[in-house]
Amino acid sequence: MAYQLRDNFKLFSLNSNQELAQEIADHLGCELGKNSITHFSDGEIQIHIEESVRGAEVYVVQSTSQPGHEHVMELLIMIDALKRASADSITAVIPYYGYARQDRKASSREPITAKLVANMLVKAGVDHVITMDFHAPQVQGFFNIPVDQLLGITELSQHFINKNLEDAIVVAPDNGGLTRARRLADRLDVPIGFIDKRKMPGEAETMNIVGDIKGKNAVIIVDIVDTAKTISDAANLLVENGAKAVYACCTHAVLSGDSIQRIQDSALTELVVTNTIHVPKEKRIPKITILSIAPLLAEAIEHVHNEKPVSPLFEG
Amino acid sequence: MAYQLRDNFKLFSLNSNQELAQEIADHLGCELGKNSITHFSDGEIQIHIEESVRGAEVYVVQSTSQPGHEHVMELLIMIDALKRASADSITAVIPYYGYARQDRKASSREPITAKLVANMLVKAGVDHVITMDFHAPQVQGFFNIPVDQLLGITELSQHFINKNLEDAIVVAPDNGGLTRARRLADRLDVPIGFIDKRKMPGEAETMNIVGDIKGKNAVIIVDIVDTAKTISDAANLLVENGAKAVYACCTHAVLSGDSIQRIQDSALTELVVTNTIHVPKEKRIPKITILSIAPLLAEAIEHVHNEKPVSPLFEG
Amino acid sequence: MAYQLRDNFKLFSLNSNQELAQEIADHLGCELGKNSITHFSDGEIQIHIEESVRGAEVYVVQSTSQPGHEHVMELLIMIDALKRASADSITAVIPYYGYARQDRKASSREPITAKLVANMLVKAGVDHVITMDFHAPQVQGFFNIPVDQLLGITELSQHFINKNLEDAIVVAPDNGGLTRARRLADRLDVPIGFIDKRKMPGEAETMNIVGDIKGKNAVIIVDIVDTAKTISDAANLLVENGAKAVYACCTHAVLSGDSIQRIQDSALTELVVTNTIHVPKEKRIPKITILSIAPLLAEAIEHVHNEKPVSPLFEG
Amino acid sequence: MAYQLRDNFKLFSLNSNQELAQEIADHLGCELGKNSITHFSDGEIQIHIEESVRGAEVYVVQSTSQPGHEHVMELLIMIDALKRASADSITAVIPYYGYARQDRKASSREPITAKLVANMLVKAGVDHVITMDFHAPQVQGFFNIPVDQLLGITELSQHFINKNLEDAIVVAPDNGGLTRARRLADRLDVPIGFIDKRKMPGEAETMNIVGDIKGKNAVIIVDIVDTAKTISDAANLLVENGAKAVYACCTHAVLSGDSIQRIQDSALTELVVTNTIHVPKEKRIPKITILSIAPLLAEAIEHVHNEKPVSPLFEG
Amino acid sequence: MAYQLRDNFKLFSLNSNQELAQEIADHLGCELGKNSITHFSDGEIQIHIEESVRGAEVYVVQSTSQPGHEHVMELLIMIDALKRASADSITAVIPYYGYARQDRKASSREPITAKLVANMLVKAGVDHVITMDFHAPQVQGFFNIPVDQLLGITELSQHFINKNLEDAIVVAPDNGGLTRARRLADRLDVPIGFIDKRKMPGEAETMNIVGDIKGKNAVIIVDIVDTAKTISDAANLLVENGAKAVYACCTHAVLSGDSIQRIQDSALTELVVTNTIHVPKEKRIPKITILSIAPLLAEAIEHVHNEKPVSPLFEG
Amino acid sequence: MAYQLRDNFKLFSLNSNQELAQEIADHLGCELGKNSITHFSDGEIQIHIEESVRGAEVYVVQSTSQPGHEHVMELLIMIDALKRASADSITAVIPYYGYARQDRKASSREPITAKLVANMLVKAGVDHVITMDFHAPQVQGFFNIPVDQLLGITELSQHFINKNLEDAIVVAPDNGGLTRARRLADRLDVPIGFIDKRKMPGEAETMNIVGDIKGKNAVIIVDIVDTAKTISDAANLLVENGAKAVYACCTHAVLSGDSIQRIQDSALTELVVTNTIHVPKEKRIPKITILSIAPLLAEAIEHVHNEKPVSPLFEG
Repeated sequence: MAYQLRDNFKLFSLNSNQELAQEIADHLGCELGKNSITHFSDGEIQIHIEESVRGAEVYVVQSTSQPGHEHVMELLIMIDALKRASADSITAVIPYYGYARQDRKASSREPITAKLVANMLVKAGVDHVITMDFHAPQVQGFFNIPVDQLLGITELSQHFINKNLEDAIVVAPDNGGLTRARRLADRLDVPIGFIDKRKMPGEAETMNIVGDIKGKNAVIIVDIVDTAKTISDAANLLVENGAKAVYACCTHAVLSGDSIQRIQDSALTELVVTNTIHVPKEKRIPKITILSIAPLLAEAIEHVHNEKPVSPLFEG
Repeated sequence: MAYQLRDNFKLFSLNSNQELAQEIADHLGCELGKNSITHFSDGEIQIHIEESVRGAEVYVVQSTSQPGHEHVMELLIMIDALKRASADSITAVIPYYGYARQDRKASSREPITAKLVANMLVKAGVDHVITMDFHAPQVQGFFNIPVDQLLGITELSQHFINKNLEDAIVVAPDNGGLTRARRLADRLDVPIGFIDKRKMPGEAETMNIVGDIKGKNAVIIVDIVDTAKTISDAANLLVENGAKAVYACCTHAVLSGDSIQRIQDSALTELVVTNTIHVPKEKRIPKITILSIAPLLAEAIEHVHNEKPVSPLFEG
Repeated sequence: MAYQLRDNFKLFSLNSNQELAQEIADHLGCELGKNSITHFSDGEIQIHIEESVRGAEVYVVQSTSQPGHEHVMELLIMIDALKRASADSITAVIPYYGYARQDRKASSREPITAKLVANMLVKAGVDHVITMDFHAPQVQGFFNIPVDQLLGITELSQHFINKNLEDAIVVAPDNGGLTRARRLADRLDVPIGFIDKRKMPGEAETMNIVGDIKGKNAVIIVDIVDTAKTISDAANLLVENGAKAVYACCTHAVLSGDSIQRIQDSALTELVVTNTIHVPKEKRIPKITILSIAPLLAEAIEHVHNEKPVSPLFEG
Repeated sequence: MAYQLRDNFKLFSLNSNQELAQEIADHLGCELGKNSITHFSDGEIQIHIEESVRGAEVYVVQSTSQPGHEHVMELLIMIDALKRASADSITAVIPYYGYARQDRKASSREPITAKLVANMLVKAGVDHVITMDFHAPQVQGFFNIPVDQLLGITELSQHFINKNLEDAIVVAPDNGGLTRARRLADRLDVPIGFIDKRKMPGEAETMNIVGDIKGKNAVIIVDIVDTAKTISDAANLLVENGAKAVYACCTHAVLSGDSIQRIQDSALTELVVTNTIHVPKEKRIPKITILSIAPLLAEAIEHVHNEKPVSPLFEG
Repeated sequence: MAYQLRDNFKLFSLNSNQELAQEIADHLGCELGKNSITHFSDGEIQIHIEESVRGAEVYVVQSTSQPGHEHVMELLIMIDALKRASADSITAVIPYYGYARQDRKASSREPITAKLVANMLVKAGVDHVITMDFHAPQVQGFFNIPVDQLLGITELSQHFINKNLEDAIVVAPDNGGLTRARRLADRLDVPIGFIDKRKMPGEAETMNIVGDIKGKNAVIIVDIVDTAKTISDAANLLVENGAKAVYACCTHAVLSGDSIQRIQDSALTELVVTNTIHVPKEKRIPKITILSIAPLLAEAIEHVHNEKPVSPLFEG
Repeated sequence: MAYQLRDNFKLFSLNSNQELAQEIADHLGCELGKNSITHFSDGEIQIHIEESVRGAEVYVVQSTSQPGHEHVMELLIMIDALKRASADSITAVIPYYGYARQDRKASSREPITAKLVANMLVKAGVDHVITMDFHAPQVQGFFNIPVDQLLGITELSQHFINKNLEDAIVVAPDNGGLTRARRLADRLDVPIGFIDKRKMPGEAETMNIVGDIKGKNAVIIVDIVDTAKTISDAANLLVENGAKAVYACCTHAVLSGDSIQRIQDSALTELVVTNTIHVPKEKRIPKITILSIAPLLAEAIEHVHNEKPVSPLFEG
């Protein structure tokens, strides 16, 4: 498909996920803008934009994935540079809005980091945000600017529809994920269950399966896989209790620490993720399937650029 | 218990819940400040503060309950008047932060009203908010000022502990409420279940009970009871499927429309609510038990006033 | 007259005055945008915009007339929704900027509600305001954004010129309205007078006519008719003191409470108003003449849209 | 009367009215703070505060009288210096808030300078304003911070009460001043009249006296005397039409250009002013009586400092 | 060269440097916009814009040169008027950003006036600034909007290249100016030196020449010539110590007080300045050469207007 | 010396320089506040404040030294947590304000990172900053809040006074550092010189010594030592040209990359630094002398806390 882009359209990539940015550019049929990101000898980030952006409508692709501090600072500094260079509008394309675990005060005297980062982005000068699967949908309200949130479930559910799994059941791996599980189950037209976790003071956590999973193909859905402990434990428990096979899927593949080993060792048959976060070579084990959301992001950018509604992309 | 209040302490009430405000004042051992709220002939709200607030630390009690527009405007106008009258600090005590259903963009081109109201309050000049049970915990992040959120679950769970129900189970009445159900179940030391709702295009909604409720005393927990449809349908379904009795509880008793009739007609044995929202005489049917959160709010106000930590009040 | 509107032009109406909004749309030769305003069961306003506004230049017609809280909230929520839906610019067309009686601190510890509402509108995201006859011209300064204020006097004075009244005199019905009276008298080329009101503590208010009104056709002008007490009392006094007939006119017809009965019973011959506020059927008594300001507002909108000066519309 | 001031109280004067500032300090029983205002060789203002203000509650006396640009800039720069020097709070005592003629858009494409200056003061860091007789009461709403407005009419009316004028009448010298005239007449317990001015295109302005002034002692009241043309013309007209004598009074004595000569040559018997603006020696002609508002301002400052209500000072 | 300007381009001049503004207009091939700047009788500035600016891209030329307070206020008021008249964007072209000596706290309790003025401009509504040679490059950071800073050194160095001086040396007249001197020396390809000034408490200032200036043509460079004391003293010292001739150059010719006499009496052969500040007739002595920066500013404006990079104008 | 601290005083340390924070606490005679800084598995920073700060006057010690992104984020998150936990005031004690190399646009399309970070800190909620030796004094103006800047030169110059060096000369190692060199030379009462660096396109950089350094003890002063290339090259050049010995000093010891080896290999006799940045064990070679600025910072904090002027600490 050939997209129509006006002359003042510019797409830049920062360091977190250049492969995805390049893929988006390829889909849009444009070149990535030229900018250099170097470091002073003490590590301070230095950004130089190497072509004029005066009057341009600029899109900057950057996930605030690990190392989060650095990727957030890169994005803030880039926005500052674009604003001072007289860009007409600045849209941050943030496939993974990390640094967002703390989106509420879970206990006293805690920060709300997800709001802090939103405030910083707006103060730095961003006009618009395109992102995917916030940790909580309320995070949209942390911004006073337009935010278009796309959903990974479209790609993820299509993958399982194509697989044509028989006797499937969607399982939420903990008490909080039931709404997301229901949404996937609707698309696959299958029942749901969940794993009830309980932790009393002074006791070990207990896990109970609620729902009938015997002899079934269980599909676990979460938004983020970080240590992979949640999905691995769930998979093992499900298999021990008679599930035929266990699949898992998520939008954001953080995959920190021993996660790869844990997935490898678990009863999981397959983990399906998207490339909102760059998955380096050494983590690309056979059990992990990576779906590209570049076509979806490219289409969203084109719709925004050409002032067409974005809703068909996530309500369809 | 006698609280120590400094001379510059002032507590005002607006129109939404004067009974609760008076109860709080009684607990604190202070008088309510004098202010009049009248209306111009065309309905425009006119507020006059009838005592000096120069240099005062002011607390204003107002739930933004029905009619929400009017109660929100009253609060905004009061804050404006206090600020212009040189109050030293303004704390809004909002037992029920209504006008907060829309805390995310559920579909395209929707407002995020909960954020809008937060922005309005801060812009008008409020310095601090004390509230109870936000619809989503992330709403705290909608404010850039300190927010102390108290939880109704303390009072509600104590009620059921006192009742000493045997063979109890906590049931979430829909897919989204499992985390809250887990929290109550932990306090009551009982198992949980939930009602799985499913709605495919062109079909009627179906409800399935997940978990074993036969012969049990089911306790449903939600944050808000509005039309009472959710809890009534759940209660009926549970009883039809063999539950011994069904109780329900919530922090915020909106109780709009036919809710009272619906509760009366349902299989519910008891509905336990708090008085964050004023429950008028005609709605006080025998099935409904009202717990007062005035002692809790009074204590929170005193802690804030005397700069003691508020956390013991909700972490205990 | 056929107006030229670009594709990205959108005109929406909220609930306060849909008749006027439709009239404006007819004059402009466009359709009203599709949006729904419903209410949650507890009365909370829910707005849904049913067509894309991405990149659009949006005009929203809403008078903040009775019930003011609701109409103000509708407008704020609509602005929030438009901003989050990526509208390019948002112009609030507020024919009657109510909730504006309190535009100064008349006594100690009063709010300045007109400023509060202005702050709320700007904070919510409005870019431009088109309005008619502020209660005081200084209210324009309450906004830090462009405000175009049109004047009802153009239509009102034309009505009396057409009438060709002989021996006319313009009378200000109280001490504060002399400047407005002078402006109408200039257009009609007639003399002026006023009614001096005086209220000493412990005494009843006294009214004296200053100026010669014997045998004359008196024309009273005010900005707002609310209870209609001011103009009815004035009319009665003038007739008692020898005026031949008394006419009154105003831009904003609030007409609250018993106003219609009071006008009916008074010595007034005719009250001329505009439709900045919707006048419901039951208030349309023969004594009241309603002039439409839709043509004027349509022209102002078209001038703003096509970046032509608006000044000819109110300086002519 | 001995006022109680805390240690952190500081009163500074800038250049516009040092005599008044010293008088206020004398009334309060304190020293003026030490600060120097010099100029770089090119005229740029240089302010140096010569004593620590860390943690202080600072009051700065400055009228924005002629030359207005310089006095506004002095005030802004002083506020900036105080803020950066860690003053705890900054109150601008602005006896005459000049640069405020343009408080509305009188015609197209005009600034609203009174709002601009208010914005500048707040942005620079002022926390509170004490002032006297705004040109329009709505100007209070231009500020989002507390403003205490005192009224010169207390002192001015007392002067005339002491004089014990017989057969007095208060006269508004133009159509806009009737409300102010009514307020003075109430205090003197006398009738009112006004001078109706009319200016048709292509004709000279005509003036007609409305009200009975024959053989009476007329008292004209305005807020500002600038060129003195309004009051001189009015006085002459009144005397020509049979007034026994004409007195005038105002709060703010701008007295620019030929005003002194004009007053001298007019039929005025006496002009009573206050010292909100410094009246230099050469303008102190016998016809002009200057009342000091230092006691009133000192009392207001003390009330603010000690958090007592200010309202008794202007509602009495 | 013929520049292409769109219809919505408007260039206005205020009072500080109308000659330069006219020259810029001539270069751009456009008319200056019509606006009047008058004064109320008390000196308050009154600005009226006499043509529609709705939707226009407006450039306002104003140096904040002597009298700085007045020129700053003119600029702020003009920006306010433009914003309220619905200009689409406002660019302040400030050839000399005066009122900027205090760009840091040189000692305790001093204002940072350069930041204050930047804050005022942004708050008033300016979108973009074009300027020349800030006193310190960090002043760019005082603005949160795009600032394009042009450099006078391009014109000044070309002047000396054309002169073809033999045996030249660039001399910094004090310790702070070495970086600027190095930049000029690079362009002229000559060595540098400086005058070391030292002032011990209780002693007179001493000056020592560091570097070899015997028999050479010394060129002094500074950013501003104000009293001309620095360059005159330096010139005299250099000649006394054997320099063949001394030239001086600067971007901003403040030339206050006795500066002209001092230059006349000094050993200086020539002082080369630009016209960022209007140099009145009586100061145009033969020793002073004035270079016009109108072509440079016109080109910068055109580049900004047509969204071409401005960098070639100062990096070339 | 025993300092008097009120009960609501709290001093916290983050990760960059805990040794210095502890030293400051020891000088003040207080405990460091309890807070934990952990990381989520993906590296995201998690801060928990473990004691109540409600109503407290909080000081947070954190240099934004390497890794700068992480230390900046820690500080921002801590400020957010403190603000939401109702701290009364938050003072950031930033001994080294790193991430501040880019304090101006050195070439086109560059960010001004030092301003960005200042904006972020203020937006997050900091009320006051205490720091040492900004890279440029204008950086103070990047903040709209009070900033107290202390100077390392007091300690550094005392060190050399104590050493009693004969035949000393202060040398600026490049063209930009002459003002700083002059300030040290004044305190040591010795002459100055500088190293003129020149780089023509296509040629290698040349360095020339300006001033007489033969047989002298040269003292180089800079604000920051990063790669140590500047001071090492300068030292080598000075020794090659006949200097007896070369000393160097700086406030901020960044010491990145090969700097330690370079210092070791150079002709430098001694490098004197302060501990604004933590110098790890492995960098503490004999040539480097570390002076503690804890006493100075402790005194500044105490002065701020007790509202005494800070100026004596840096003007003495």
